[in-house]
Amino acid sequence: MDPYLKVDPWLVVESAWNPADVRRSESIFSIGNGRFGQRANFEEGYSGDHLLGSYIGGVYYPDKTRVGWWKNGYPEYFAKVLNATNWMATRIHVNGERVDLNTAKKVVSFQRTLDMKAGVLSREVQLILRNGIELTLQAERFCSMHNQDVAAGRMSLATNVPAQVKIELGLDGDVQNEDSNWNEAFWTHVSQVADDETQRCSIVNRTNKTDFTVAATAQFGLKNGPGCKPNHNQIGDASAWLAYDLDTIPGQAIEWTRIVGIATSLHHEANHCLEASQQMARNAFERGYERLRADHVGRWDEIWAKSDITIGGDVAAQQGIRFNVFHLNQTYQGDDPRLNIGPKGFTGEKYGGASYWDTEAYCLPFYLASHDPAVARQLLRYRYNHLEKAIENAEKLGFGCGAALYPMVTMNGEECHNEWEITFEEIHRNGAIAYAIMNYERYTGEVEYTHEFGFPVLLGIARFWAQRVNWSEEKQKFVILGVTGPNEYENNVNNNWYTNTIAAWCMKYTADVAERYQSAAPEAFADCAEQYNFAQSAEVRDWRSKADLMYLPAQENGVRLQQDGFMDKEQLSASDLPEEQRPINQHWSWDRILRSIFIKQADVLQGFYFFEDEFSEDEHRINFDFYEPKTVHESSLSPCIHVVLASRLNKQDKAYEMYLRTSRLDLDDYNREAYQGLHITSMAGTWLSVVEGFGGFRVRNGIPHFDGKLPRGWSELNFRIGFRDRQMKVSIEASGTSVSLLQGEPLDVVVSGEPRTLEPA
Amino acid sequence: MDPYLKVDPWLVVESAWNPADVRRSESIFSIGNGRFGQRANFEEGYSGDHLLGSYIGGVYYPDKTRVGWWKNGYPEYFAKVLNATNWMATRIHVNGERVDLNTAKKVVSFQRTLDMKAGVLSREVQLILRNGIELTLQAERFCSMHNQDVAAGRMSLATNVPAQVKIELGLDGDVQNEDSNWNEAFWTHVSQVADDETQRCSIVNRTNKTDFTVAATAQFGLKNGPGCKPNHNQIGDASAWLAYDLDTIPGQAIEWTRIVGIATSLHHEANHCLEASQQMARNAFERGYERLRADHVGRWDEIWAKSDITIGGDVAAQQGIRFNVFHLNQTYQGDDPRLNIGPKGFTGEKYGGASYWDTEAYCLPFYLASHDPAVARQLLRYRYNHLEKAIENAEKLGFGCGAALYPMVTMNGEECHNEWEITFEEIHRNGAIAYAIMNYERYTGEVEYTHEFGFPVLLGIARFWAQRVNWSEEKQKFVILGVTGPNEYENNVNNNWYTNTIAAWCMKYTADVAERYQSAAPEAFADCAEQYNFAQSAEVRDWRSKADLMYLPAQENGVRLQQDGFMDKEQLSASDLPEEQRPINQHWSWDRILRSIFIKQADVLQGFYFFEDEFSEDEHRINFDFYEPKTVHESSLSPCIHVVLASRLNKQDKAYEMYLRTSRLDLDDYNREAYQGLHITSMAGTWLSVVEGFGGFRVRNGIPHFDGKLPRGWSELNFRIGFRDRQMKVSIEASGTSVSLLQGEPLDVVVSGEPRTLEPA
Repeated sequence: MDPYLKVDPWLVVESAWNPADVRRSESIFSIGNGRFGQRANFEEGYSGDHLLGSYIGGVYYPDKTRVGWWKNGYPEYFAKVLNATNWMATRIHVNGERVDLNTAKKVVSFQRTLDMKAGVLSREVQLILRNGIELTLQAERFCSMHNQDVAAGRMSLATNVPAQVKIELGLDGDVQNEDSNWNEAFWTHVSQVADDETQRCSIVNRTNKTDFTVAATAQFGLKNGPGCKPNHNQIGDASAWLAYDLDTIPGQAIEWTRIVGIATSLHHEANHCLEASQQMARNAFERGYERLRADHVGRWDEIWAKSDITIGGDVAAQQGIRFNVFHLNQTYQGDDPRLNIGPKGFTGEKYGGASYWDTEAYCLPFYLASHDPAVARQLLRYRYNHLEKAIENAEKLGFGCGAALYPMVTMNGEECHNEWEITFEEIHRNGAIAYAIMNYERYTGEVEYTHEFGFPVLLGIARFWAQRVNWSEEKQKFVILGVTGPNEYENNVNNNWYTNTIAAWCMKYTADVAERYQSAAPEAFADCAEQYNFAQSAEVRDWRSKADLMYLPAQENGVRLQQDGFMDKEQLSASDLPEEQRPINQHWSWDRILRSIFIKQADVLQGFYFFEDEFSEDEHRINFDFYEPKTVHESSLSPCIHVVLASRLNKQDKAYEMYLRTSRLDLDDYNREAYQGLHITSMAGTWLSVVEGFGGFRVRNGIPHFDGKLPRGWSELNFRIGFRDRQMKVSIEASGTSVSLLQGEPLDVVVSGEPRTLEPA
Repeated sequence: MDPYLKVDPWLVVESAWNPADVRRSESIFSIGNGRFGQRANFEEGYSGDHLLGSYIGGVYYPDKTRVGWWKNGYPEYFAKVLNATNWMATRIHVNGERVDLNTAKKVVSFQRTLDMKAGVLSREVQLILRNGIELTLQAERFCSMHNQDVAAGRMSLATNVPAQVKIELGLDGDVQNEDSNWNEAFWTHVSQVADDETQRCSIVNRTNKTDFTVAATAQFGLKNGPGCKPNHNQIGDASAWLAYDLDTIPGQAIEWTRIVGIATSLHHEANHCLEASQQMARNAFERGYERLRADHVGRWDEIWAKSDITIGGDVAAQQGIRFNVFHLNQTYQGDDPRLNIGPKGFTGEKYGGASYWDTEAYCLPFYLASHDPAVARQLLRYRYNHLEKAIENAEKLGFGCGAALYPMVTMNGEECHNEWEITFEEIHRNGAIAYAIMNYERYTGEVEYTHEFGFPVLLGIARFWAQRVNWSEEKQKFVILGVTGPNEYENNVNNNWYTNTIAAWCMKYTADVAERYQSAAPEAFADCAEQYNFAQSAEVRDWRSKADLMYLPAQENGVRLQQDGFMDKEQLSASDLPEEQRPINQHWSWDRILRSIFIKQADVLQGFYFFEDEFSEDEHRINFDFYEPKTVHESSLSPCIHVVLASRLNKQDKAYEMYLRTSRLDLDDYNREAYQGLHITSMAGTWLSVVEGFGGFRVRNGIPHFDGKLPRGWSELNFRIGFRDRQMKVSIEASGTSVSLLQGEPLDVVVSGEPRTLEPA
């Protein structure tokens, strides 16, 4: 474990200055509010190596695809999360010297704190400049969870001797994505305003090609009396600044605030964005920094009331789980169906597009249990809204008749990934999207969503599978050739058991839903059938027969085979790998990885996780014991599934070992890649580990089940579950699991195998 | 068939002007001399769409690799054939207007001729300029086969009215590769000289990174009297020019020659290249254009005497086969072990690197039969010289102990291709390199080469296979997982029959050679064994046991299975494909191609071609009948192998159908891609089709066998075979095959199954 961060239940604290940590700290201390967010860059700028990054959800750019060898069907563009206006741009000169941690003579002290309870980032630095002046700089900021158009920051500066200080406060739109493929300009800079009178700056930028308009207005206030007006302003090509010349008095800090409003064409007419952002900034400024901050903290209190998890006896684990839950809440709030959960959230640019199958397979349960159902519904609506593009995507690959293939990576519904073995072959993603529809209904009990919005999506997906299988004369079964399963350390394999299993399930489930929908709402169903040219019983029959005759490779001992030919591999265990060859993806050439037995993340076991109740405990055990030892867990999404399964199998030590790999992945930077951004979607996996793993939470037949199994070293584990208008509190101690109802009507539950009815307290 | 070229036995003639044909004609009319070569660009320049291209064998640039997603083991650079100095740069102005076919008012007539017998490219054009002047331009040029440092050209210009003409003759090094990945500058321009007095221009350029120096000197001569001295000279950043101002007299053409010497650091000290090129140009100029031309044509006479093929009764076929033989001879002359046969030769830039497995699998037999054995030996030496790099390449992929993996594509021995499914997995290429060593010895009878230079290569290759197999507990056999076979429409398959077969053969053959070498030359062998840490009997035993226990997938009916799982595919024939979906590589997404049954080029059948005598005729027939109908022949290397096999099986119509697809592939531009350059290596396949296919030529136990089978419509087929210091003439007519000895000692042959002894005429 890397000791550069202090262990604390609610805070993340970095208390020493090390330039080598800048990028990863920028990631770890990122803040956001579900609509926009930002890496923990220094307000006053930094000339050393760092990654400046402010991101606005849903504002993306179609960067031209870069591949070595083009294959038919590749997307022409790769939609990218876009680095946007730096709204905290600040330049400070003291006696003419720029304040910059990189060039200062000495950093005397440095402390950066992320208060996860309050959602506030703060920093206090003591510097000696090259000119000998000693100064103290304090800064805090937040992206308001209460008013998602607003961000705010407060800074102060004090010097040890009287000095002349120039403080320039502004907005800077001259930003680039580090990972752009062709160094294209992503932005056109529309207008810049710097108004001394109102002490407001505004800039408006528009994305090329996608034509998103983003306006930001910042209103500044210096605390040191009414005379603190800017001395001049400056307009750049892409920036607007106000400059204040001041003389400092030792022992008396200069303090200033900035209140920012951000308006985009996602929510406003493009030509009204400027005005809207000005209005936002003005209104918020009138409310004042302190009240804005209180509103924001209040909203976080509400969020934590529903989603906090407490762990007794293990502060590192406590901090780890809160860190995960904190970032999940910062990344997605479910108020906009155009947004989704990017794998890096607002903490970095890597991986471009915003949604992967991670959303459906790993993130949905967290939002179901910790938020209003409307939030999870937005995630489903995202795919519903992209159905037409998924049908087009399937057409590009030679499918027809309404078959839909959802993209592997997307921002707007179009595929934007281009490794053939992933884009074209990792088609199991379609299954997770169908599974999420079932999961939503299973959790909420709302059949209406499934019928009205779920069914068209299921229809497209079932049609895809029905066309994607082919009949094997040799096997006398339907087979699915040439796929990549969840274990991406195998490419272009035949009959991946997980893919075949979920494909069969999709067809069967869609058939069931079609029949149920028809009898529940014949008219609506008939309209829908007409709209989608649904051949009804003919298609249903076809799906059922293909599902029934699906080839599912297995051994006689009950081991489901990951794919055809799996037993031809050299049968090794991950424990046979020398430490210096791990992770193998950094040490082995791709062909060696592919032909080896080593598994990147749960594959057959992902199927056991999804369809748990269809397999006996023996089958679970046999397959877990066969596959887990071969798994190198080189995806951040791997350990969590293994925690859940190991916990079910009472393999508590294995479960805890796996838990450690997921919960502090970024805080402790296990994979030395936090500098690129955080593993946001795998944070939902950590939540699964705790709630479904150690908490044993399941919903079966509309009834919540709990079966707590406390890891060694934990004295207690408590979490909240929102379920069908109730709030439950679940407490697990060595003595057992207790569940109580905090809110809502009486509810039947099963706790450690015993049916109970929860009554209001 | 596209009628834009005239059918003629010795000439290729384009007699109409069509700007849309410019690029493909530039390819088709390319000239070269094995050391350098050039597309048929217009001397006077052309402002329309075209690809200016002059290439020098062995002068390459390591262009930075471009891939979408990096995989461990990828080469950092992709070595590229380099566009070099344009040595025929000419600018002509008539009354101030630049002569340019693209801007002329009218192209009255246009004729371009490639005289394949003489190796001379010529052109005659009549133009009306926009200023109304009518002119006739004639040009011819050649790259001397006699003196491979020299190129020469002659031009003339006549106008219909007296006019002022400015003729600028020069050298231009301001050239780019169209396919550069990052728009890097490939060249540094070292020096430029334009000397009015001697009428010589020189330029020296040096490649960045690889540091090749190329100096070119052109000496000019205007024929119209001694007064024809240049009026001025001009030096550009990368060019040197002499300009002549002249007045034309109608009916009297202005004529000029240019004699060019090209010296590179491949053959000269870098700082002597300029002087060397000046010396070459001076000497050649003294010899004079006519005598240079006669020397060149004389050398072509010698080449044709050994390699001409005549076909009676089918002028198109006659032209086609000569076009193939002509380009093969232009591309490679075997005088430099650093050179090899690029898939586009000197006719285009596509595919970068110079050598593929094409050289060993398809080209070697042509050079064995049509040239001195030293030429084929150079091709083998090329790989011997790269052995160390092949060992390094294998190490990058995790192999050790001297295992060698030759690159898929290379210029200097390093891998320079980067699709993982090709670079890392199309490892059968190693087999072809071993096969070529056996083939050379089988043909020439020279065991010395095999021992001294062949064995170290075989050793590296056998070691690679011995490490690349793994034991399958399930199959109780050795298997080879994760490969791409010759049929590149399958990737990452297990147990490709061809790969497993050639791997087993390599190990067995290397074991045989080791034992033979040891008993033939114990001391040399012992030295070699020490040098390469050869464990002798232990390794030999290991190879033999792995070869014996190699898994070779097959059906009970004798069909060898292309790979595991092949019978799970939907069993279709290429004839089921709608015409508008062909070629499938232009219409189908990659996953669809991969999971389909369709075969790009001979795969199992490539094994039957290589190891013909190990299979019965029945087995040949069963496998041909199974695979050929599934083959879409979308590689230019596919039809030829099928001609040879079909001919052996007396499927004459199928053989001829396939022959048509190979012999006029570029002349008729079947695949609409001649504009990128010609399919040089597949031209060797055409030769195989004729000589091994219709001629039935084989060498068995040191004895040449012939078994002529004339295609319908041909009255006769004649070709020459050079074999172990003899020259044979083979004539096939409807009445049968006759073979006569043109030169050398008596020789035993087998003709149509009958043993005979050839006596000198």
